[in-house]
Amino acid sequence: MFKKLDAPLLSKLASIVGEDNLLTDPEALEPYSHDEVAELRHPPEAVARAASSDEVARILSLAQSEGFPVTPRGAGQGLSGGAVPVYGGLVLSLERMNRVLEIDGENLMVTAEPGVITGNLHREVEEQGLFYPPDPASLDSCTIGGNIAENAGGPRAIKYGVTKDYVCGLEAVLPAGQVVQMGGKVVKNVTGYNLIQLLVGSEGTLGVVTKVVLRLLPKPQERVDLLVPFDSFEAAGRAVSEIIRARIVPVALEFMERDSLLAVEKLRDKEVPFREAAAHLLITLDGNDKARIDADYERIGEICLEHGALDVLVADTPQVRDRLWEARKLIIEALQHLSPQHIMDTQDVVVPRSKLPELLPRIKEVGKKTGLHIISFGHAGDGNVHVNVIKDVDEELWTAKRDQAAEEIYRLAVGMGGMVTGEHGIGLTRREFLGLGVDAHQIALMRRIKEDFDPAGILNPGKIFA
Amino acid sequence: MFKKLDAPLLSKLASIVGEDNLLTDPEALEPYSHDEVAELRHPPEAVARAASSDEVARILSLAQSEGFPVTPRGAGQGLSGGAVPVYGGLVLSLERMNRVLEIDGENLMVTAEPGVITGNLHREVEEQGLFYPPDPASLDSCTIGGNIAENAGGPRAIKYGVTKDYVCGLEAVLPAGQVVQMGGKVVKNVTGYNLIQLLVGSEGTLGVVTKVVLRLLPKPQERVDLLVPFDSFEAAGRAVSEIIRARIVPVALEFMERDSLLAVEKLRDKEVPFREAAAHLLITLDGNDKARIDADYERIGEICLEHGALDVLVADTPQVRDRLWEARKLIIEALQHLSPQHIMDTQDVVVPRSKLPELLPRIKEVGKKTGLHIISFGHAGDGNVHVNVIKDVDEELWTAKRDQAAEEIYRLAVGMGGMVTGEHGIGLTRREFLGLGVDAHQIALMRRIKEDFDPAGILNPGKIFA
Repeated sequence: MFKKLDAPLLSKLASIVGEDNLLTDPEALEPYSHDEVAELRHPPEAVARAASSDEVARILSLAQSEGFPVTPRGAGQGLSGGAVPVYGGLVLSLERMNRVLEIDGENLMVTAEPGVITGNLHREVEEQGLFYPPDPASLDSCTIGGNIAENAGGPRAIKYGVTKDYVCGLEAVLPAGQVVQMGGKVVKNVTGYNLIQLLVGSEGTLGVVTKVVLRLLPKPQERVDLLVPFDSFEAAGRAVSEIIRARIVPVALEFMERDSLLAVEKLRDKEVPFREAAAHLLITLDGNDKARIDADYERIGEICLEHGALDVLVADTPQVRDRLWEARKLIIEALQHLSPQHIMDTQDVVVPRSKLPELLPRIKEVGKKTGLHIISFGHAGDGNVHVNVIKDVDEELWTAKRDQAAEEIYRLAVGMGGMVTGEHGIGLTRREFLGLGVDAHQIALMRRIKEDFDPAGILNPGKIFA
Repeated sequence: MFKKLDAPLLSKLASIVGEDNLLTDPEALEPYSHDEVAELRHPPEAVARAASSDEVARILSLAQSEGFPVTPRGAGQGLSGGAVPVYGGLVLSLERMNRVLEIDGENLMVTAEPGVITGNLHREVEEQGLFYPPDPASLDSCTIGGNIAENAGGPRAIKYGVTKDYVCGLEAVLPAGQVVQMGGKVVKNVTGYNLIQLLVGSEGTLGVVTKVVLRLLPKPQERVDLLVPFDSFEAAGRAVSEIIRARIVPVALEFMERDSLLAVEKLRDKEVPFREAAAHLLITLDGNDKARIDADYERIGEICLEHGALDVLVADTPQVRDRLWEARKLIIEALQHLSPQHIMDTQDVVVPRSKLPELLPRIKEVGKKTGLHIISFGHAGDGNVHVNVIKDVDEELWTAKRDQAAEEIYRLAVGMGGMVTGEHGIGLTRREFLGLGVDAHQIALMRRIKEDFDPAGILNPGKIFA
């Protein structure tokens, strides 16, 4: 179906990116054969590490005329297999395009290359009193380009939205090799259809982003974090609803099921606080006014205690805060280590937040019914749950039941007015489930849009569509 | 090219919407022949006032199979001719679908039909302590459906963004008649390509929105407004930059050129305050903390006075506030009345906000050079300028120079990293200028997307693309 990267093609690619930046050695290719979905691996035939939009354009032109597949890649931190080169071919790595090009304090915009590590961008803009809110858990290892491809979310979404809410301009290379400039340092723009928002979240299937212009906010000056243990899921869920009803919108409103914290204990060999609690809420407030934040967190504390919280731990220094968040940030790693084969299946469903107290116990029931071990955590404030099906059962049961469990969980979420994936993307792992959240007419339109952008089908083939 | 609405077709349409809701009398059709662009008028052959998505679907199916054009219409408050039925055919009015269906305080979402007047939706959600920020100037006459079609902005965009930033779910009827449900009461969703954001701002060319789900915020409890006269454009522009550099983001940061206020004086026959000032800034701050807002507005006042403000008028009661905003809200109406033929040409350019002090005098130069009378006002905080070319010159000069002036203004904006239209849309009036802001590759993609959605070309033909 696709052309193989033979010697003449490899030589052409080397002439574009330089010998040093064309990898073909199997050992060098290995890290580029997977993302954070441990099970999914497929080696590329080569990796090209491009240094400019011009190099990206020449690579895509060549791919289009010769017919080999190109899988763009940021840092491979995705959770849906989006960067796995399932058809082999070329992985186009943007890791060398990693400069913050400009922080424009007057227009509150940052311009960056796609390979910038998101956490580095955070730090650079924060040094100037500015703030880029989206904060996926993989902050310190993922890239801005990957965040745009996946429309990454993170804990701060409840107050500040997700990646798409900050993208004002893009430079992108279309699959046939044209370099296009979209938008710019403008906060309003209705000049034709919104192709920027079509590229954001398109999982590297419509174009390769080579430059981004992101809107910034002034950095909030004050912050308080709370850790609140509850003796039941339902109680935690009711507290979340009540906080929102009180018209308080925290920056983060996370929940962690007991088993997720026990997994962290196991990883660190160190006891977590309130390990007997069935669920924890982790809540962040920010703003510029200390008195206001204090009033809000006291109100939240009262609400939580009224709804069965076992305690309310307050962190108003960076040290204590980091301790509270440490467990949350380690959950995925801990779960990956929990299972002997380090393998799990993660769903990323999203429901209207009011449905969470109903969804969580029903997910537990799916676990009981299938005999699989299911652990949930996620963004309670967004109704976004990371449901982890752990492979600590025998192979036969796992194989027989995992798809059933996944499908039941997706159907539960969709049945509650929710969606198949809130922030991880469809990628490779959810292709069969796209149709649960989006009807056939919309899928047909998406497929036609894909063909409009990429008639040769060379850009990240095999993703999104089953 | 298109089929005319003959008697059998009219009869079919009447059977869908009912006799009473199919208008064919020339007098009844007149109000549906134009939007707020006074010069552009074209009567439809009929108007159907649909009451449900089912009726909309049956109308579009009929249009597709019979080949007559359909122009969807909210309240006709647009400023780019988007609702003008240039090919005749049917105007599909959504004015009867005007219910707020649900205000969901727990999920902070409102569900509404497209024909709801935006100001009514504001009031209904605010009664429950909630807040829908987008506030186009035509708030009390435009509809939510129209706002979505145009991705409407408004003064609050600098802090709160525009319509697209609040749309979480849509029900839409595609041109061939399929009713699709997109998204829902979820704040995160990456289930396939973002077709919602493609429909928002597509100016009624890709689908007809029949239901909207909008994200809400808690209503800010405090607000202060400032009116600040300056003796020069440049001074006002520098003050704007300095406010942003001080890391203060107001809700609104508007500017009005002297001539725009003189036009309002003429309309009201009543003197405006500081009529001798070359430019006024109108600034709103909001939040929940009075002390913080007071500190911010005092800082803004200081900054303005340091940069040549003639005075700083503070409004902290609704009465005084309404007086400050009255002139701003009347500008368009006043300009329309200024010219004997009530005709003007409005550009809606947007630039990085730091470029405003450079753009405004250069727009004045275009006026001098062409001999046309140009008056600017708009959203300084967003770099979004409404440039009004008034027809108070003789017909010959107007005809000879208006397109030249428009093109020079667009080129100025684009040359500064800006865009052709910030919030009014391309519609009919800016079709020839789309290519100034968007390159040929992107226009080709947009055309293909239009064909994907509307292969028969029956939905709002003649718009966006020249």
